[in-house]
Amino acid sequence: MDDIRGINEECGVFGIWGHERASELTYIALHSMQHRGQEGAGIVCSNNDYLFGARGTGLLTNALSNEQLLSLKGFPHAIGHVRYAAKGSSELSNVQPFLFKSSRGDLGICHNGNLVNALNVRAALEDDGAIFQTTSDAEILAHLIRRSKQSTHKERVKSALKQVKGAFSYLVMQEHALTVAMDDHGVRPLMLGELDGCYCVASETCAFDAIGANYIRDVEPGELITINDDGIEFDRYSDIDNPNMCSMEYIYFARADSNFRGHSTYRIRKALGRKLAESLGHIEADIVIGVPDSSLAAANGVAEVLHIPQEQGLIKNRYVGRTFIDKGQEARERKVRMKLSTVKDIVEGKRVIVIDDSIVRGTTSKYIVKALRDAGALEVHMGVASPPLIHPCFYGVDVSTHAEIIASQKSISEICEEIGADTLTYMEVEDMHDVYRSFGSRGECAACFTGNYPIEIIDNLLPQQKDLKTKGV
Amino acid sequence: MDDIRGINEECGVFGIWGHERASELTYIALHSMQHRGQEGAGIVCSNNDYLFGARGTGLLTNALSNEQLLSLKGFPHAIGHVRYAAKGSSELSNVQPFLFKSSRGDLGICHNGNLVNALNVRAALEDDGAIFQTTSDAEILAHLIRRSKQSTHKERVKSALKQVKGAFSYLVMQEHALTVAMDDHGVRPLMLGELDGCYCVASETCAFDAIGANYIRDVEPGELITINDDGIEFDRYSDIDNPNMCSMEYIYFARADSNFRGHSTYRIRKALGRKLAESLGHIEADIVIGVPDSSLAAANGVAEVLHIPQEQGLIKNRYVGRTFIDKGQEARERKVRMKLSTVKDIVEGKRVIVIDDSIVRGTTSKYIVKALRDAGALEVHMGVASPPLIHPCFYGVDVSTHAEIIASQKSISEICEEIGADTLTYMEVEDMHDVYRSFGSRGECAACFTGNYPIEIIDNLLPQQKDLKTKGV
Amino acid sequence: MDDIRGINEECGVFGIWGHERASELTYIALHSMQHRGQEGAGIVCSNNDYLFGARGTGLLTNALSNEQLLSLKGFPHAIGHVRYAAKGSSELSNVQPFLFKSSRGDLGICHNGNLVNALNVRAALEDDGAIFQTTSDAEILAHLIRRSKQSTHKERVKSALKQVKGAFSYLVMQEHALTVAMDDHGVRPLMLGELDGCYCVASETCAFDAIGANYIRDVEPGELITINDDGIEFDRYSDIDNPNMCSMEYIYFARADSNFRGHSTYRIRKALGRKLAESLGHIEADIVIGVPDSSLAAANGVAEVLHIPQEQGLIKNRYVGRTFIDKGQEARERKVRMKLSTVKDIVEGKRVIVIDDSIVRGTTSKYIVKALRDAGALEVHMGVASPPLIHPCFYGVDVSTHAEIIASQKSISEICEEIGADTLTYMEVEDMHDVYRSFGSRGECAACFTGNYPIEIIDNLLPQQKDLKTKGV
Amino acid sequence: MDDIRGINEECGVFGIWGHERASELTYIALHSMQHRGQEGAGIVCSNNDYLFGARGTGLLTNALSNEQLLSLKGFPHAIGHVRYAAKGSSELSNVQPFLFKSSRGDLGICHNGNLVNALNVRAALEDDGAIFQTTSDAEILAHLIRRSKQSTHKERVKSALKQVKGAFSYLVMQEHALTVAMDDHGVRPLMLGELDGCYCVASETCAFDAIGANYIRDVEPGELITINDDGIEFDRYSDIDNPNMCSMEYIYFARADSNFRGHSTYRIRKALGRKLAESLGHIEADIVIGVPDSSLAAANGVAEVLHIPQEQGLIKNRYVGRTFIDKGQEARERKVRMKLSTVKDIVEGKRVIVIDDSIVRGTTSKYIVKALRDAGALEVHMGVASPPLIHPCFYGVDVSTHAEIIASQKSISEICEEIGADTLTYMEVEDMHDVYRSFGSRGECAACFTGNYPIEIIDNLLPQQKDLKTKGV
Repeated sequence: MDDIRGINEECGVFGIWGHERASELTYIALHSMQHRGQEGAGIVCSNNDYLFGARGTGLLTNALSNEQLLSLKGFPHAIGHVRYAAKGSSELSNVQPFLFKSSRGDLGICHNGNLVNALNVRAALEDDGAIFQTTSDAEILAHLIRRSKQSTHKERVKSALKQVKGAFSYLVMQEHALTVAMDDHGVRPLMLGELDGCYCVASETCAFDAIGANYIRDVEPGELITINDDGIEFDRYSDIDNPNMCSMEYIYFARADSNFRGHSTYRIRKALGRKLAESLGHIEADIVIGVPDSSLAAANGVAEVLHIPQEQGLIKNRYVGRTFIDKGQEARERKVRMKLSTVKDIVEGKRVIVIDDSIVRGTTSKYIVKALRDAGALEVHMGVASPPLIHPCFYGVDVSTHAEIIASQKSISEICEEIGADTLTYMEVEDMHDVYRSFGSRGECAACFTGNYPIEIIDNLLPQQKDLKTKGV
Repeated sequence: MDDIRGINEECGVFGIWGHERASELTYIALHSMQHRGQEGAGIVCSNNDYLFGARGTGLLTNALSNEQLLSLKGFPHAIGHVRYAAKGSSELSNVQPFLFKSSRGDLGICHNGNLVNALNVRAALEDDGAIFQTTSDAEILAHLIRRSKQSTHKERVKSALKQVKGAFSYLVMQEHALTVAMDDHGVRPLMLGELDGCYCVASETCAFDAIGANYIRDVEPGELITINDDGIEFDRYSDIDNPNMCSMEYIYFARADSNFRGHSTYRIRKALGRKLAESLGHIEADIVIGVPDSSLAAANGVAEVLHIPQEQGLIKNRYVGRTFIDKGQEARERKVRMKLSTVKDIVEGKRVIVIDDSIVRGTTSKYIVKALRDAGALEVHMGVASPPLIHPCFYGVDVSTHAEIIASQKSISEICEEIGADTLTYMEVEDMHDVYRSFGSRGECAACFTGNYPIEIIDNLLPQQKDLKTKGV
Repeated sequence: MDDIRGINEECGVFGIWGHERASELTYIALHSMQHRGQEGAGIVCSNNDYLFGARGTGLLTNALSNEQLLSLKGFPHAIGHVRYAAKGSSELSNVQPFLFKSSRGDLGICHNGNLVNALNVRAALEDDGAIFQTTSDAEILAHLIRRSKQSTHKERVKSALKQVKGAFSYLVMQEHALTVAMDDHGVRPLMLGELDGCYCVASETCAFDAIGANYIRDVEPGELITINDDGIEFDRYSDIDNPNMCSMEYIYFARADSNFRGHSTYRIRKALGRKLAESLGHIEADIVIGVPDSSLAAANGVAEVLHIPQEQGLIKNRYVGRTFIDKGQEARERKVRMKLSTVKDIVEGKRVIVIDDSIVRGTTSKYIVKALRDAGALEVHMGVASPPLIHPCFYGVDVSTHAEIIASQKSISEICEEIGADTLTYMEVEDMHDVYRSFGSRGECAACFTGNYPIEIIDNLLPQQKDLKTKGV
Repeated sequence: MDDIRGINEECGVFGIWGHERASELTYIALHSMQHRGQEGAGIVCSNNDYLFGARGTGLLTNALSNEQLLSLKGFPHAIGHVRYAAKGSSELSNVQPFLFKSSRGDLGICHNGNLVNALNVRAALEDDGAIFQTTSDAEILAHLIRRSKQSTHKERVKSALKQVKGAFSYLVMQEHALTVAMDDHGVRPLMLGELDGCYCVASETCAFDAIGANYIRDVEPGELITINDDGIEFDRYSDIDNPNMCSMEYIYFARADSNFRGHSTYRIRKALGRKLAESLGHIEADIVIGVPDSSLAAANGVAEVLHIPQEQGLIKNRYVGRTFIDKGQEARERKVRMKLSTVKDIVEGKRVIVIDDSIVRGTTSKYIVKALRDAGALEVHMGVASPPLIHPCFYGVDVSTHAEIIASQKSISEICEEIGADTLTYMEVEDMHDVYRSFGSRGECAACFTGNYPIEIIDNLLPQQKDLKTKGV
């Protein structure tokens, strides 16, 4: 139950080199990844001579006007970005890709992820006279590249990347080349594709489908790829290759039709549901309901294994609304009620298993259980297709702080009581890893479930706190 | 596959009398019916002394600002409207409810539906000196009421209603009363409910669920209801009682959780799917896919009967996008592709039955078949959970003209060829009626399938043509 | 000292028939009359087949977009309007010209002035079933025309005009004719002109200069002019010919370069100054200062007669600003200070005669006297180039009510004390009339000075009160 | 004839330290200097702890919302800026004051003027890794300050100022101090004032009058002033003291009521007129007309000396308009005609001396002469209260390039013929200097008249060209 839950993704990126419709393809690709960020969007293009760009706040349709899009036509190389913004940092100056003009050449840059040593590096740069205009990690890399004394652009990028720690996919556009880099833990997804003989990269494969491109392979942890008119060059900037793909990408962020190594997240989620079903077998239930939209696949898996029909007992209102009261529990409840409703004659008199992909604060789960009971459900069993979410994320997900995460405050049975369900069943961490492995994953970050952070948290700041620390006008 | 198909509903209405949170409840109710109209919204309130209102264009959140909503607080009586507008008539002056001020008292009015003698009545009124400011049928009723020489308001409304023909639900607000009227064929839905001892009416029961009200019963064809501080009074303005509820409300317009006589449209659609499945039994298929969102229920019914798993093989992008090219077949195709995508590893190597609720132009169906084949489907069988749509609607649905409706130009086998499906199966008209009857319906309009129009088409103009005929500044 | 004084004009009108650049000329003409109204503007055109129009709120540049203006190109007949609006009635629906579409033909209408029996006529029309959408007097005439049973359009307009009382210039556009009417007291100015063989009308001759047209003559009280493809036809709808041109038009409203019977208001104002100088001869002063911009001409006249140099000792800031505090005396004072400033080294050590064209509340005069003294003026003598303004206007000027008009509360010597001047000299009413007569005027309304209202005040409502009485949504 | 002539000022600045209404006073001061820049405005405040700011594009009322202004309340220190922007560089990111946040403290900065070695310094900084976000000279100083290795802030500012060449007034705000610097040729005006015991600085004294502050003295060339809670400290960063105040400030830019060393520009302009009159003595004329608004003072001087009455024969329309055609001579002419009009009965039959303060392209002059003749002037003699403008300005004035400046292409007699005047009289350069000297000036830049540039033009770029050279997104 995405937007009312409090987990938010930090951005999607796309880049393509050498295509006559580069900016349009970038726009279409960004549109397909709009779920990864709705607070801003931008495109920066190159024509081998100079860079040119446009960006704006809000959804893609607001962010980029027809006039702006037309002005980008004809440029054969482009990178683009959709942005999720923590509250308060949504001003235009933070919208990516950034475009830095200089007498030494232009630089376009965008990224997905979060650095864990951003404050440290930034402070060091500032001590040395650097001036920052944004609170973004992308600008940090730009300063590091510009200040590097290495002789080639690629070496400058490498030296810059070696100084930053965290989870990131960077796209760096120059007049003559597009450089692509993935952090050495591979936390955020980044895919390599091909269209009409041109290379492209995207956070998710759904972008390739949207433009008609073919998926080649995932970009690897620590990899550095350079694309220019001479073709593509694969290199590495780090010896570490320690794959830790974010578990939440599989569970919730990625679009259902996006693939990882040839497997859709729909199928992975369904497999999570099938695995979860093993722990639900003892429950006598009449129907399985998935919380729309992201949990329908898992619910489908549960229903299949348990041989219980899956019904659309919860309906989501697609439209944004307002409540007259803004604060407090009542406001939150009215808000959820305006988003989700039950189909009474489906639910009435039934013993229900309801499947959600995760629980953050518990507010939504509590409402769902209550709504189902109000609609006449005899029993409500909640199944969660992921382990208890306990720890905050430092790698680019804007999940709430400890205090707000219900599972970091209460035991499973306490949560069950709090949300009013008859039973509450989470997935085991190991079961989750098993599922991912069965789809070819070489390793996943499960820090939000286990507290084992694969990358050392140097600044010790959440993404949203970092924004406040460095906030400008 | 709603918004890219070319069938559009004409509005939703809500009214409540005597509740301290009247305007807020109206807002929440309108929000739950936003699917019935996205081009404008408004609320008109009464405090027994005078009427006051606010309205605006676009979605509810744009149409009514927080400031406007606050200005409506404290009024205990309210009516509200969400509006679908044919292209070109989206200006503010046409947004309902209309509020007419005069020395003889105020009049607030809104409606859902379409008059079939609007031009005739309007011309007669104009010959008699009336000045119209809008192209809306609601204004026509206002003139008729104001010009009536009857002695009581109720008699004036009755005399006005007797002069108009067509499909309509009217809400008429005055300082001291809310009058509710349904055309004598009952084409558009209108429901009576109750909350905290106050009466309310809504186009769909989902509005009652959204505000926590209880459903009492459907408003009957020819019925005239008056609600005021003394309570509720049931009356009729017409002796005709000839129920002809719009079939498309069941099939497609109404929200899945809205009820008709206690049955959700989700269940009705599922039953349509179950009935359709009887004609699909001969097909050997591996999976059933519903076109999201409106056809998922029917697909569920098909899957159940055929014992074939239902999978989410088509994904809908919730966000609005732009294509660089505007016109022609290529533009339409790109547009559909930006809206719908396939989950490849679900579809690949499968024989697919895809269920849609209707086919208008065939563009979307053609894309769907092609997309499924591109994703590796071995066979694609299209099942449509309604009969062939052949005739335009004069009762408030903005469906395309004959020339654009594929089934009015081609036979089923020609359509099958055009969209590229292996087989194409429609529902029989009688089967559809059977399903409705099994849910307690007393009669439905099936004119768009059969050409038998239950109400004589006096002006012989489609809703969208009428707008052009009477268009002002 | 116009916009901070509280006298506001009610609109300017323009019309032209048969010119290929009709809408552009109308736009330019309205631009030249922007001083007559800044709250809205519109243009309605005819192509002999139908009427088409555009309008918007705010200044001309905001009110009409380039796109809108282009849509008006090619129409050979046009009327236009700039609107002043009393606070609270600035919504788009009240912006003129109104365009009424009907099966009986289209009607475009705009006016300048104020009816004094509007409420009476309106109530009678409403009793007979008429529905009003605006609070404007222009709509009243439209209803009267439409309801008239006369056989020709001209007779219908005549019959309508005979029912309304007050001060007005009406322009009525139909597909085939432009009808122009002036109230039988001739309170508001209306001029007839010619360009490239086409007839045009305008509130002021500056509009003719702006488009390069030639002035023909003033439209006469009670006159009715019809312009169509056959030429021009002069007629009367009233036998009364009782000229009472608004004195304030000469003193303050009309642009300095606008002519009345061949004499610019600049020259008339200068003559008022020369006449006023006769009462100022006893004052020993070093410089004469006019309050910019409207009083510079009168000051010039004073300076000439007294043989004292005129200096630009007060400077007006052209830009709009904001004060942090909104209410009370301090806010008003800061506001004036942000508008007007003194040139210290001009004023310092000087005995100053300062000339203003009128005093309403006295706030500005008080500030001016204080500012001049603060700048070092040894003496400040205030001369007013009009008689004491005592009574409100019912004929279209939004002057404050009795309570706010300082001269209706205090004697001249009390006002002098209140504003802190050394002496205060007003013009005599008879002297003012003498000046006007010397420029060929046949009679002026001086009701705001004398209380003798030439047209009976039937509704007994000020323009701004009327708006409230009939205010809709 | 300001805005249609093509001379544009580059900005106004204001700063105040330690006043409880600091941000409001800054707003009022900026309002009084709005004539110095209309494309953007901003305010940056300090509360001794951190800096906070707001800025926006357009006029002050658009640039800063009420909400933004309220958010600045309570901060006791503030600097503000109104900005003139060459076409194409009007985006928000270029609006000053800039606010640079860093772990080493905040920096607010704004300036008036133009550096002549900006590109050089910028390129050197970029070679050293600096990243620029704007095209503004203010950002250059910020980088220089931040990169300076000096130990105190003041030394860092001094070292930064020593590296920049050109015409500038800089205001630098830090948490604990406001630093004010003037270039060592004193080209742009900057004034020191005092209000309620607090120090303030402004580009013009009219800002002091607007807020009620007292003028102390002009800031001197090469001076560096530091204001903080301990008081004020006067210092110098340069040994050069070579006063070259921009002549155009006296002639045209500064508001008529702004003072230089106690003399208003009104009086200086009048003196220029008196001096010019000496060359006009041979002309037999009936009236003197000044081109509004900036040339009225000079015309007054001419009239006084020649004993010929000054009349307001040209009227300026305050409102912005549109022409339907955009390009070519006809568009320019219509545009001028919409701005300026003649008072026919003043001009008719008269021999006219018309006084303008300068001629750039000649388009406006040509129109004025023609308009006066069309209005019946028997003779039109043009007097210009400044020498022929021949050379472009590199010190912050956006005057046209050589090709567009009529006097750099034609002789005076050719210009006279081109504009159609009977005679054309310019001022002598030496006469102009004499006038300035008589008002206490120690030296003025007359480069635009003489081509003698007091500061070496290192980059050799006009302000408007520089923008293009460094333009970003």
